[in-house]
Amino acid sequence: MKSGNSRATRPAIPAQISSTGLVIEGTSSGQLLLGFLDSVLRGIGQVMLQGNSYAGLLFLIGIFYNSMLFGWAVLLGTAASTATAVLLDVNRSHVQAGLFGFNGALVAIALLYFLEPSILAWGYVVLAAACTTVVMAALLHLLGAWKIPALTAPFVFTTLCFVLATARFGRLHSTGVLPTAGLPKAATVEGIVTASTVVEGLLTGLAQVFFQGNAITGIFFAVGLLISSRVACVAAFLGSFVGLLVAWGMGAAEPAIRAGAFGFNSVLTAIALGSEFFVLNGASAAYGTVAVVTTAVVFAAMSAALEPLGMPALTSPFVLVVWLFLLASPFFQRLRARTNT
Amino acid sequence: MKSGNSRATRPAIPAQISSTGLVIEGTSSGQLLLGFLDSVLRGIGQVMLQGNSYAGLLFLIGIFYNSMLFGWAVLLGTAASTATAVLLDVNRSHVQAGLFGFNGALVAIALLYFLEPSILAWGYVVLAAACTTVVMAALLHLLGAWKIPALTAPFVFTTLCFVLATARFGRLHSTGVLPTAGLPKAATVEGIVTASTVVEGLLTGLAQVFFQGNAITGIFFAVGLLISSRVACVAAFLGSFVGLLVAWGMGAAEPAIRAGAFGFNSVLTAIALGSEFFVLNGASAAYGTVAVVTTAVVFAAMSAALEPLGMPALTSPFVLVVWLFLLASPFFQRLRARTNT
Amino acid sequence: MKSGNSRATRPAIPAQISSTGLVIEGTSSGQLLLGFLDSVLRGIGQVMLQGNSYAGLLFLIGIFYNSMLFGWAVLLGTAASTATAVLLDVNRSHVQAGLFGFNGALVAIALLYFLEPSILAWGYVVLAAACTTVVMAALLHLLGAWKIPALTAPFVFTTLCFVLATARFGRLHSTGVLPTAGLPKAATVEGIVTASTVVEGLLTGLAQVFFQGNAITGIFFAVGLLISSRVACVAAFLGSFVGLLVAWGMGAAEPAIRAGAFGFNSVLTAIALGSEFFVLNGASAAYGTVAVVTTAVVFAAMSAALEPLGMPALTSPFVLVVWLFLLASPFFQRLRARTNT
Repeated sequence: MKSGNSRATRPAIPAQISSTGLVIEGTSSGQLLLGFLDSVLRGIGQVMLQGNSYAGLLFLIGIFYNSMLFGWAVLLGTAASTATAVLLDVNRSHVQAGLFGFNGALVAIALLYFLEPSILAWGYVVLAAACTTVVMAALLHLLGAWKIPALTAPFVFTTLCFVLATARFGRLHSTGVLPTAGLPKAATVEGIVTASTVVEGLLTGLAQVFFQGNAITGIFFAVGLLISSRVACVAAFLGSFVGLLVAWGMGAAEPAIRAGAFGFNSVLTAIALGSEFFVLNGASAAYGTVAVVTTAVVFAAMSAALEPLGMPALTSPFVLVVWLFLLASPFFQRLRARTNT
Repeated sequence: MKSGNSRATRPAIPAQISSTGLVIEGTSSGQLLLGFLDSVLRGIGQVMLQGNSYAGLLFLIGIFYNSMLFGWAVLLGTAASTATAVLLDVNRSHVQAGLFGFNGALVAIALLYFLEPSILAWGYVVLAAACTTVVMAALLHLLGAWKIPALTAPFVFTTLCFVLATARFGRLHSTGVLPTAGLPKAATVEGIVTASTVVEGLLTGLAQVFFQGNAITGIFFAVGLLISSRVACVAAFLGSFVGLLVAWGMGAAEPAIRAGAFGFNSVLTAIALGSEFFVLNGASAAYGTVAVVTTAVVFAAMSAALEPLGMPALTSPFVLVVWLFLLASPFFQRLRARTNT
Repeated sequence: MKSGNSRATRPAIPAQISSTGLVIEGTSSGQLLLGFLDSVLRGIGQVMLQGNSYAGLLFLIGIFYNSMLFGWAVLLGTAASTATAVLLDVNRSHVQAGLFGFNGALVAIALLYFLEPSILAWGYVVLAAACTTVVMAALLHLLGAWKIPALTAPFVFTTLCFVLATARFGRLHSTGVLPTAGLPKAATVEGIVTASTVVEGLLTGLAQVFFQGNAITGIFFAVGLLISSRVACVAAFLGSFVGLLVAWGMGAAEPAIRAGAFGFNSVLTAIALGSEFFVLNGASAAYGTVAVVTTAVVFAAMSAALEPLGMPALTSPFVLVVWLFLLASPFFQRLRARTNT
């Protein structure tokens, strides 16, 4: 997502040869197909802010390991949103970097997680993925005024709309895993956190970035991150750990901690603030830590706020916190923005 | 709404002689009254994005045909919001184009639809209409940075506030047509769509733009549109039809389809994207169609999202979708913006 | 909050000698401590838009008069958010004006009003206060594009998040004074408004700006305002009175009127629009009055809107209305902005 903050008219990413060598300037249909495939893999990688097709491939394998359905969903969603961008003639370098793919990837998983698969549902997924491309462009334009990236906001917005809408559409059926609509009420401490909770929660925190509740999938993701950036990999684990610690300390329910519910937003915040946007120094490390802690609190808040609608928080806490901490950063003279060259 | 995107300091609409010849530069009280009347009629026309006083007159007749109460409400609301703009000395060309009238028109209908008429209620309507003028100016300023229009957002925002507030005000009584507050739940297919559903739904889809559930009123509106712009009239029918088709295909309830509930937002999106903001070509037609389909989905989503508050979606889906599709458009090189001369 | 609209890079407030003489340029630890204390007192003053440490002191005494707990909470919250700003090296003149203190003051009172005090709760308050500093900086950056101030939005946003989050955190317990989550329903007129309702409501309207339901505390606040600005003091009383009148006329419940529930947001709107942002003339007085009336309506609306979450409206009506009325003002040629010199 390195170039998420560029303006429409002056893209920050120069057209590049792919790190995997897949993008070869050329016009034969084979070359175009390879180029498209590379954009799709990078799009999957961008879910964790890595415009790297090897990382994307590892993430994809991790998802297929957990579920064939979600694996195909990710491929379809990323392809649909990327193809929409190609059809609409978006600046090529944006597409190549995968910036028009990652929201489509996530929206496809989320919709097929919440809706029974049917032909209508798959069509609904394609429409939603195409919409993320429009919302992405809209947010790049909107947020360009402050030079902050869109992150996964298009995914959050589109998914909430398309899932909420099914409350009026009798031919789309939910899978029963949606939270039941209800009014928020006081929590009690539930279950006991053990070493196995911590180990499993740490890995599922990574896996839940793609909504996969599977620790092994988390290991695939970690390897993918490691290939792309060692700093991002370390940041991801620290984020997952801090999110887990906050939840534990505050008395969140053990099953939620084990499932990585308090981890995945913190993972994304940690990667973004720890490895993407600031030069790493004492101030930025402290700033990032406060952001990661806050992300866990905002996750609890957003999931309570959406309870009357029976909707999940998705990655809205990550988006909100990173937007706020990036918007605020020019005021803080000890923080230095990373310039992407 | 051609000049909705102009900046406060540099209005896009030059002062013009009215198409109906009503605005004659002059200062006699008779001339001023005629000028004001023309602004009010154009304000009513702007509800469907037509700054044309004949269109406004036809819309007004259509409303009176359905209900005397709503007819007077529209006149009062449009006059109150326009007069507020005059009193506050807004740039004259904005007022003449009806830009400070259409939100007042809608807020007055909506409040008198949901509240029992009483002296207090009529006073409440005048205050609300005056507020739409302030909200309109605020949004023109806010959105001017991206050159996108305010659309009916002032109406949506003001109506939601003023209706929600009655939950604390014991002297204002609701009419019982507000949706009951509840938690969203799964839908089932309800009723069978027949040819009569389609014909009636197509026309009520137009009529519901002013919240009139009456097919004949829809015919008056169509004639008004035809006088102002043939393209807008065709776009309106296509919008109503596509909204209806989406609702039908997805399994929405037959009574809602017949009543035009899934139509009116799509009608507005179709007029805006089909006849106002883009040069019509293959790309813009496809783009507009996706937007119209998405509007029907967002309508379902917004009406579910507002269910715990017992509030209706009003025209919020139209506003959201058109904002997103306009904001996104500079990224898509096949779309060309219409320049209004 | 005179400099709330300044940009990060070009602060509007030149470094000044404090009105209380506490800020002496110097580097001895005693001088630094006195300077910090002055910033904290001004921060408390800024809750009512007075960057005046005497006013802050009077406000603090008024709070201690009502409750030792809230007195200490205000001191801790203001100190924590101000210290965060100092640690992050925010432009010194902003910190000295108290701009990074007032949201911390309010968040600390609100959290300790809603949560049982415990060591964890006090730590939670410190984290929340630190977060208001980040949110404040983010909003200064975001809103700088339109030159409008952040007001108490950081407090509202942070408090809603941190209170909502406790629905997932079993080790933080609410005090039982939170509104019960429920669905909004029609109101009936409740109780009879008497002279004692009016007198008490007028004063508690002021006191509720700091969430203190105590008329004597309101008197302390009035004296503090009087020391800082006679116009602000008069505006505050008029605001409280108009808010009360609107509530009474619309049929709000008598206990809510007596408790000042409809007053405190109107007090803040009146101070902001009556004494801070516009040159006082006929147009701005009328504009301000409409804003104050609207604030009472928006308070009713926001408190109904937040009912399904069981959350209070806090000062969100003040923030929303003042933002809208400031954003709109450049369109209205009879209003003249005050330039702060």
